[in-house]
Amino acid sequence: MQFSNRTGSQQLNPIALSQAKALNRGDGIRSLNDSNPTRHGLGLPSLGVYAAEPRGPLPAREALATFLCQRGQAVSSEHLYLLNSTSQAYSWLLKLLCNPSDIVLEPRPGYPLIESIARLESVLTMPYALHYDGSWFLDIAHIRSLLEGPQGNRIRAIILINPNNPTGSYIHPQERARLIELCRKHGIAIIADEVFFDYPLDPIPGRQRFAGESAVLTFALDGLSKMLAAPQVKLGWIHVSGPDQEVEEAEHRLDMIADDYLPLSQIIADQIPDLLQLVHRQSTIVRNRCIENLQVLRTLLEEPGCPVSLLKAEGGWNVLLRFPAVIDENELITYLIDHYGYTGQPGYFFDMASNGYLALSLLPAPEEFVRGVRAILCSVEAILAL
Amino acid sequence: MQFSNRTGSQQLNPIALSQAKALNRGDGIRSLNDSNPTRHGLGLPSLGVYAAEPRGPLPAREALATFLCQRGQAVSSEHLYLLNSTSQAYSWLLKLLCNPSDIVLEPRPGYPLIESIARLESVLTMPYALHYDGSWFLDIAHIRSLLEGPQGNRIRAIILINPNNPTGSYIHPQERARLIELCRKHGIAIIADEVFFDYPLDPIPGRQRFAGESAVLTFALDGLSKMLAAPQVKLGWIHVSGPDQEVEEAEHRLDMIADDYLPLSQIIADQIPDLLQLVHRQSTIVRNRCIENLQVLRTLLEEPGCPVSLLKAEGGWNVLLRFPAVIDENELITYLIDHYGYTGQPGYFFDMASNGYLALSLLPAPEEFVRGVRAILCSVEAILAL
Ligand SMILES: Cc1ncc(COP(=O)(O)O)c(C=O)c1O
Ligand SMILES: Cc1ncc(COP(=O)(O)O)c(C=O)c1O
Repeated sequence: MQFSNRTGSQQLNPIALSQAKALNRGDGIRSLNDSNPTRHGLGLPSLGVYAAEPRGPLPAREALATFLCQRGQAVSSEHLYLLNSTSQAYSWLLKLLCNPSDIVLEPRPGYPLIESIARLESVLTMPYALHYDGSWFLDIAHIRSLLEGPQGNRIRAIILINPNNPTGSYIHPQERARLIELCRKHGIAIIADEVFFDYPLDPIPGRQRFAGESAVLTFALDGLSKMLAAPQVKLGWIHVSGPDQEVEEAEHRLDMIADDYLPLSQIIADQIPDLLQLVHRQSTIVRNRCIENLQVLRTLLEEPGCPVSLLKAEGGWNVLLRFPAVIDENELITYLIDHYGYTGQPGYFFDMASNGYLALSLLPAPEEFVRGVRAILCSVEAILAL
Repeated sequence: MQFSNRTGSQQLNPIALSQAKALNRGDGIRSLNDSNPTRHGLGLPSLGVYAAEPRGPLPAREALATFLCQRGQAVSSEHLYLLNSTSQAYSWLLKLLCNPSDIVLEPRPGYPLIESIARLESVLTMPYALHYDGSWFLDIAHIRSLLEGPQGNRIRAIILINPNNPTGSYIHPQERARLIELCRKHGIAIIADEVFFDYPLDPIPGRQRFAGESAVLTFALDGLSKMLAAPQVKLGWIHVSGPDQEVEEAEHRLDMIADDYLPLSQIIADQIPDLLQLVHRQSTIVRNRCIENLQVLRTLLEEPGCPVSLLKAEGGWNVLLRFPAVIDENELITYLIDHYGYTGQPGYFFDMASNGYLALSLLPAPEEFVRGVRAILCSVEAILAL
């Protein structure tokens, strides 16, 4: 496993060595240069004493680890990094793994933010294709050819979105086995974005998180944004797993990155135990909304002669609709804006292979959802009739 | 002014154009793909509806702008970017201004974190020297020679720490005028870290913030970490100013960066008005502590034959002590650890030009502060007597 040279190899200077010895003797050490006001009685009493911890405050990490274990995701607090969002997690991991012009593989169609975040790190993205033939699948041979191709030695990680947005597809068990094999062989890491994992719609049997995978260095991302339907809380996390030695080296370097930013507010950290209590209720509400809207959608699309169909969505918060490709995507959306006051994201926003797609959120309240779907159906019919 | 190519030039696609037209007509637009659960009645009621705003929630920015105006820093909320820390601000600004291998100028001696943060962005730092002859000063001719030198065309910004850490020196009025002239001439931006500005110790007449400077594109950094003595709150901000057109272009691109991360929690934002109320009281307490400890320190160092002296510190939370350079810095600190349980940061941590310095925090409670100073004096004397 290669890491970028954005983090240095921190050598122990004589001072750090003397400190380590003193600590080993059991001596306490104070710093003559301590500029943390909360340790000198100068902080706000309501906020307590601040101890900078790169991975996030330990009590918060422990609360999260306990919560995840109860849900069947075995993890110890020391392998969790708390931060503000999945975007921030991507940014740290790209810094950890990639020098400028190094490459990460990303799914296409996929979440457009990834390319933008990579560009901010001067990292290149190379798409690997998902294909659809009634359900979505990965072309493993294509991924292999990228890894073995002329730029293969610059590829540092593969991003897996499980389930992917907007295709709603989970990584299937056979795909998983092949991906792990390829990553091991080529010494690349897995970045698994699993924020939608617990929102199955039409799920595949045997779907599984990458979080905790031990065969390959794996960074699994999740957070309260989707899990609690609370994007404004700004709490995400990275769960590091894999072969022991690689995990150790990765965490050593990730600590240096985290230590430079220390992004998590104590005010948020203090609320984590309470917020986690609410996850079950919140995610059940959102899941039910998605499943009910999907049912309604299916009924609406079954009307005879309906020109719009639904791509199979295994999980997540939205689905892809297919309309006759004789209609230009921009034309449809312009029509929707002008006649119904609805905008939307067409397939080309996600790099779909052809024209004729529209992403639809399953979150709206039932009446509003039906209104949106009817607007789409009427617009498609009106344009076909022009 | 050049910006990096990490942010793209977002072109308006036909959909964005149709949306803009509809908004101009006064039509409301909903999105068929809206995946913000809080807009669909699915969020936590206690947290309200979340509106993603790149510069941070408007009410919070307005509260901050009002607060800053009351303190004499004229700023409108639209030129403020709220984020979690000064480190994050540095990271965003380096992305905005620098491609990999571009250069920023940084003060030496200076805050070691800057080099580390720059490295995480694959940006190079080039030191410009501060010299001491009874007070600290900038060698403007040296800065000019760097800008005119062989790598001058890769320099994108100068970092000014006002006052600097650990030298405690403000940028002096004549220095300021020359720096602005040089930045204009070479088309480089100013990044001014002013977190310690309101902690004068032995201040110079005419000290002034760079925040709000209109002659050069200026990004001034500040935050609650020092202002409220609350590093655990994690609230910092960038104040953008300069020539109108450059500000507009910079903010357009900074919005793209901010929009990818959206780091500020609503939970923190909601507390900003209350927290700002506490700033005056908190910063007065900290300022008084620093000034009182400095007075005590002076008295202790005036004892006849004292081998330690104090470098002039104009502002901030710490000072530099000078001890006989026949003692190695590592030797002194190892001695302090072993005999007194104190560690510290010697001059070489900050790239001082020679051996013989030690940084000392002015924050400790009085008795603890005196204990620390006495430990230093006794250690220096003991080593000299060896
Ligand atoms: C694939 C994917 N990952 C992550 C997120 C959430 O990111 P964050 O944690 O930054 O809110 C989203 C939100 O739309 C997403 O679609
Ligand atoms: C020069 C300087 N800038 C900024 C900070 C504070 O940074 P933050 O806002 O990331 O807490 C410090 C803290 O020591 C500092 O010395």
